[in-house]
This record gives sequence, structure tokens and C-alpha cells, in this order.
Amino acid sequence: MTVKVITVGEDILGANDAKARANKKRLDGHRILTVNIMSSPGAGKTSLILSTIKKLRDKVAIGVIEGDVASSVDAEKVNEMGIPVVQINTAGGCHLEAGMVEKALDDLPLEDIDLIFIENVGNLICPNAFALGEDRRIMISSLPEGDDKPHKYPAMFADTDTVLLNKIDLQPYLDFNSDSFAKVVTGLNPKAVIFPVSCKTGEGMADWFAWLESAVKDKKKK
Amino acid sequence: MTVKVITVGEDILGANDAKARANKKRLDGHRILTVNIMSSPGAGKTSLILSTIKKLRDKVAIGVIEGDVASSVDAEKVNEMGIPVVQINTAGGCHLEAGMVEKALDDLPLEDIDLIFIENVGNLICPNAFALGEDRRIMISSLPEGDDKPHKYPAMFADTDTVLLNKIDLQPYLDFNSDSFAKVVTGLNPKAVIFPVSCKTGEGMADWFAWLESAVKDKKKK
Repeated sequence: MTVKVITVGEDILGANDAKARANKKRLDGHRILTVNIMSSPGAGKTSLILSTIKKLRDKVAIGVIEGDVASSVDAEKVNEMGIPVVQINTAGGCHLEAGMVEKALDDLPLEDIDLIFIENVGNLICPNAFALGEDRRIMISSLPEGDDKPHKYPAMFADTDTVLLNKIDLQPYLDFNSDSFAKVVTGLNPKAVIFPVSCKTGEGMADWFAWLESAVKDKKKK
Repeated sequence: MTVKVITVGEDILGANDAKARANKKRLDGHRILTVNIMSSPGAGKTSLILSTIKKLRDKVAIGVIEGDVASSVDAEKVNEMGIPVVQINTAGGCHLEAGMVEKALDDLPLEDIDLIFIENVGNLICPNAFALGEDRRIMISSLPEGDDKPHKYPAMFADTDTVLLNKIDLQPYLDFNSDSFAKVVTGLNPKAVIFPVSCKTGEGMADWFAWLESAVKDKKKK
């Protein structure tokens, strides 16, 4: 495994931002809505993508970029649905960078796509600092993680457009306080929209689908 | 927020290892068992520490080092129990390093302590690469995260001594396959001990307490 170490490096962030802007320009040229999905490991990024493909595939042409430290299990699930997908393995790296996405875009049929999901590496800290060229950031937080997550990992919640609060089907078995969660999210990020959902039961998903479809349409008009 | 960026840096890891060895020597001098607890955000690190304090505090003198990106909510909970605790805030950093622990040790009454818990930053990727001077690594994985986590984040599971599989009280409401989880963990790490537990209900915790108390006693004998 390549050993990755944390250092402060504004030059690297600057270079990343330049590549992210280039990705954005390229995606804008195709009028593709690009959504960067971030969360802790196991919060439901892949489940959200799979549910959304099932619901919207007849109306919206979807492509997926899967980011993982190792393995391609998520990409295989997407591939089984007949959806174009590219797997990025970061070999120990804890987030995606714009240069990785740039290469992945070369392997997607951009002419035929309306919406790209980029599933970031499962991590509540570092992905936030790296723009990828996305139009929207979606942060998934799940009930079993606890209602204190926005308080403990504030940067991720502060920079997102939309928070999907997933696994609400487990509410009866958990001490999760939705009001307290929403209060801290709104304090960090007054514009954030919160969708309480269950990818498993489908509860609340209609609002997310409507929001996403509307964003895809808006992007087409631009 | 200080922006942190990933680069490859063997020199930094080497310097970290030297500090980790110095921490280990210092802790060995006091015959303190030191346990580095790692997991995803919300898997139950703090709950495990609090439950263990409750159970063992009459027999074992415990100290705690809390690592977080931001906030001191966990340290406050430990402090309320009258247990010596030091909070490390990494200001965006996604793991603890040995130098941070070195400073924290200065603020703990090492003469009077048998066991130190170091609660690492909630992250399934980077903490693994940074030795802190610990005797044991404990990895917590929780059922709601899914049984595919060892497959997707292998390094963390490969390098741990013990895996606590937490939140088993939620098994009836989840599609978690314990056999499949155990198989991948054992494949990565044949020596790893897996304790299925619920910090919430107490189920399975007796085995963990016994394991830990025995490790504390062994350290005293050395």
C-alpha cells in the first residue's frame, strides 16, 4: 500500500482547484449535472445511487464515478444495472482529487449523459477540501452515526448543498434527536436543505428524486 | 480552518514512528497499558470508553486522550465521570500523530494510571498509518456500517489486534451478515479477535472487559 501522510500544502489545493475548474467547464459543455456524494463509511452512498438509478433511469441518463480506497464492489453493483461506471481506487488515499475525476471522465460517454454521480471515499473529513468540478455536494449522514456528527465534523456539513439524513427506518431503535441534528446543521449552514430518507424502505425519497430531477433540468437549460 | 492536504511523505512517517517509540518507552516505564481505538465516525468509540470506565474503574485506574477534528463533547463526558482526560483537536487533521499524544501525556497523572484509552479521530483510513506508542489497537466496526467494510477498508482491519463488532442490538433490523464479515476480517488478519458487542445493551461486553483486564494485568507484570 502507498503510505499517505497529511501535510499542509496550499500549492496542492491550488492545483486541485484548477483541475476542478477544468472538469466543471468540460461538464458544463455537455450540460451534465455533476453531484459529489460524501459521507462516513457505510452511511448509504452506494444505496442512494442505486435507488436513484432505479427511479430515474427512464428519464435521466446517468453515469457514475466510484471512489474507494480499495475494491470495486460498488462499481460492480452499478455496472450490473447497465449504467456506465468508472472505478477510482485511491490506494490508501482518503479522498478523491480533481485529477482522478479528470481521468475518469475520459472513460464515460459524456455525449449521452445527463447526470454524473461521483461517490467519494467514505470519510467525514478530507473530501471536503477537494473540489472535483461538481455542481452540487450531497452529504449523507445516517441515524446510527449519532446526532452529534455535525458538531464533531463541522466542515463537511458547512460546505454542502444538501444533507440526506439516511436510515430513518431505524429511528425507533436509536436515541437520535432529529431536531438537535437539524439545529446544528442549520447553524453551520443556513442554506442547507435536509431530506430525511430511508434508502431501504423508500420513505422520504420522493422529495430527493424531485429535487434532483429539477436540478438536472435546470442544468439542461443553462 | 487549517487546510490539510494529502501527500506521500516517508520522512514524516519515520519521524512519527520515532516519537511513537518514545511514547511507548515512557508508557512502558509506568507499566501503563495503552489502547488506540479507531473506527468510522459514530461506530461507538466514546460509548465503549464510557462503558468500560463504568465497569472497570474500581479495579483499574483509567486515563483518556480524546482526538477530534473539532469540539470537546467526548472529553466532557469522560471528565464528568471524574476520569483524567486530555482533548486533542486536530483542526481538520484526519488522524492523531505520536507528537500530539506526547504532549497529551504531559497532562495526565501517569504515576497513578494503569490504562490509557486513546480515542482516535473517526476515520477508517488514515489513523492506521500512524503509530502513537500504543500496546494494542482496537478497531470498532458497527453493524449499520455494513458487512462489506473490511473488504473496502482493508488496511485498518489488517493491522488491528482486536475487532469490536458493535451495535449487535440492531441485527434484527439490518441485513448484516456476521459470517461474511468475520470471514473477510480473518482473511486479512488471521490473529484478530472479534468481539460482537452492544455498548447500548451490554450484550457481549463481559468478554471485552475480561480481555482488557487481563491485558492490563499482563502489562503490570512486565
